[in-house]
This record gives sequence, structure tokens and C-alpha cells, in this order.
Amino acid sequence: MEIKIMKNILDRNQNKANEVRNLLVSKNIVMVNIISSPGAGKTSLLERTCEHFGTKFRLGVIEGDVTTDRDAQRLKKYNIPIVVINTEGGCHLDSHSISKVLDSFDLDNLDLLLVENVGNLICPSQFDLGETFKLAVVSTTEGDDKPAKYPMLFRDARAVLLNKIDLIPYTNFSYTSFRNDLTAINAGIPLFEISCTRGDGMDDWYRWIENQILSPEDNHDSVR
Amino acid sequence: MEIKIMKNILDRNQNKANEVRNLLVSKNIVMVNIISSPGAGKTSLLERTCEHFGTKFRLGVIEGDVTTDRDAQRLKKYNIPIVVINTEGGCHLDSHSISKVLDSFDLDNLDLLLVENVGNLICPSQFDLGETFKLAVVSTTEGDDKPAKYPMLFRDARAVLLNKIDLIPYTNFSYTSFRNDLTAINAGIPLFEISCTRGDGMDDWYRWIENQILSPEDNHDSVR
Repeated sequence: MEIKIMKNILDRNQNKANEVRNLLVSKNIVMVNIISSPGAGKTSLLERTCEHFGTKFRLGVIEGDVTTDRDAQRLKKYNIPIVVINTEGGCHLDSHSISKVLDSFDLDNLDLLLVENVGNLICPSQFDLGETFKLAVVSTTEGDDKPAKYPMLFRDARAVLLNKIDLIPYTNFSYTSFRNDLTAINAGIPLFEISCTRGDGMDDWYRWIENQILSPEDNHDSVR
Repeated sequence: MEIKIMKNILDRNQNKANEVRNLLVSKNIVMVNIISSPGAGKTSLLERTCEHFGTKFRLGVIEGDVTTDRDAQRLKKYNIPIVVINTEGGCHLDSHSISKVLDSFDLDNLDLLLVENVGNLICPSQFDLGETFKLAVVSTTEGDDKPAKYPMLFRDARAVLLNKIDLIPYTNFSYTSFRNDLTAINAGIPLFEISCTRGDGMDDWYRWIENQILSPEDNHDSVR
């Protein structure tokens, strides 16, 4: 009974996600659904990325949070359009809330829409938002076992950002274990080893996301 | 419609949680529902706590995980009864799964049952397991804004463990911000500042949890 209800919820989410995806494809907009644990560094990644691309591309941000607009406040200085979705306790964004807030953006003047999902490694990976692709962010201080223990996201993501590599010397994080587990789940997935606070590895990430922006027609996850 | 369904699910969970709680009270068992983000240090806390109390009290562990038994494997060396609940994608434990696995323990020979919930700061806090109390674990590397951004858990918990204080020198974590936010949500809640890897602050935690074990009749969250 609960399984049937969950299927109905997911089906309705999928229908709306397909609408969102078709709209974004028609407007040549790349939308990235950024998913991580709380505190893995999604907002720091947005800060770096908005700073780097703020004049080169037309950016927009959707900030998903259980409550507060703290993350959005951190991004105000970049003068890009930001919309906050407070889920009021909800553990993930869904395609209906994304569809509603898309009206707030000038879709004819937008290249890249960065969606910071609610901090949660599980539920957000089950809800298609109509994104071009999912991006997994994971930090070294969470331990090297996250791909094995939370495989859904790492299976579905287009790329993985391993953040906080500057803190590795102070932890027992093993690159080898992390990479082996990730490869077992999603062989060949691009992996960027970065430090958003110190700036390590950001250039490779910028190059990769720029390629996604410049050829959006090749890059949309197929409409399901 | 979705709200009504969620209410039914929560009502059924609550009924079973009340049963579990009554059973635990009758057996003088303290059950701790340990909740945190992925990688905040729940399993490391269990390792330290099992090592410390392994001969003094009769312990048991329930390991909740989306998949794998990796956390349970880490605890095998303590020779205490451990049961793994794999949620197969589910984002939290519920009282029905706890009720089922309680049969695996010898409840007449158990003082402290430590439940490691699924790594998730949101959903587990909505589901009463029948625990004596909830324990919030949060790590400094997640940032100082977690109580403000995920208030539900910090409002309901009996105590907060702030883990990974050994890593503070390498982060921008602010004790003042953290404490101010926590106090605004739950003034007077016991806060233990610890490092499970280095051992800092563990003695205060051991003393506190020992007090909970020695007088369980005063400590059960009231049956709702």
C-alpha cells in the first residue's frame, strides 16, 4: 500500500519533471541538480562557480533548504537571480516546486541554472527535477565509504566532486577505497578532487561544466 | 492528500513506537536513537562507547543502513549482539522494523541498546522508534550552521555531540555561532564537544550516558 502510494507520488513527479526538461531543452538552459550530505560544500561550490562564470555566462540559482535563507544570503554578492525554496521540513526538492519557481527567471536570458538541493544523500536522488544532470558532491571528512553506503546518487550522477581534499592529511580518508567503491558503482564517471576553500582542482571543474554549457543539446538526461 | 497519507504513516509508526517504548520501560532498557548526517561519526562513537562500557554494562547495537553491513563489521570485535537493518533505499528507520528485530536480543539481559539510524539529518527525526531519547551527532567539518538549517533534530534531541573538534583549526567553524544557534532552538541542551578519533571530551560523554543507564525510569521520553 505504501509502495503504491510512493509510486503515484514518483509518477506525478516524473510527469512534471518531463515538462520541466522539455522547457529547458527548448531554451538551451543547462540545469544542474546538486546533491550532497549537509555541509559537504554545495554552497561553497556555488560561490566559486558564480564568481568564475558570473560575467561569462548568464547564471541563476535555486536554493533548496528545509528552513532559512542562509545559503542564498551567501550568494547575494554575485548579483545573479536567486530563488529560495523552503521545504518546511521536507527532505528533498521535487519537480512541482521547481516548475513553479522557473517563472521567476528570465528563461530567454539564462545559460546555467544551478539547483542546490536539500542537504541529504538519500531522498533527493529519487526525485527527478527535470535537470540536465545530477551532480554528486561529497567531502573527504565524511569518510571514504559514502559511494558504497549511499549508491543511488553515485549511480545516477553525471559527475562527482570530492571536496575538502585539503583536510585529507588530518583524516583517515583513503583515495584508493573511495575510487574502488565509486568505480564498482559507476565506472568511468568523471571525478574532480577539489577544495572549495583553498581553490585546488577548480580549473578542471570549470572546464568540464563549461563544456556542458556550450553543448547543452548533447547533455540532457533523456526524457523518461 | 499527500499530507493525509503522511499523517496515517506517522500515526501507525507512533502506535508501534509506543508499544516498543512500553516494552523497553518494563525491561529497564535505555534505547538511544543516534541521528546525524552521513559521516559525522556515529559508528566511531559506537566504537568508543562499546569499548568503554563493554564489560560494565550489557550492550546491544542496531545498525540502520541503506545498504551494506560495513558499520556492523567495524563493531564485530566488541563481541556484543548487533543486528543490521538494511532499509534498501529507505531514508530512515521506523518503529516497525525496530519492533521486529527486538526479538533477536535477550531483553532480560540488556542495559543499553544503541541504534545507529540511517545517515540523514532530516527524515529520521520525524519517526519515533520508541527510543528512550534521541541523540544528535554533528561534526565540525559540516559547518557551524547545522542547528539553524536542520532545527527539527536539535529541538527533539536529549543531547548533542559535536564531533571532530580536532579538525576545527583547519576549518572556519565558529563555536559562538554554533552555540548561539543551538541555544535559540533548544536552550540548556547538554552539548559534548568531542573527537572520536583522538578521544577528546569522551569522559564527560561516558559519565552522562552512564547516568542515563543507571536511572532509566526517569529518562524515557513520555509515551505520546
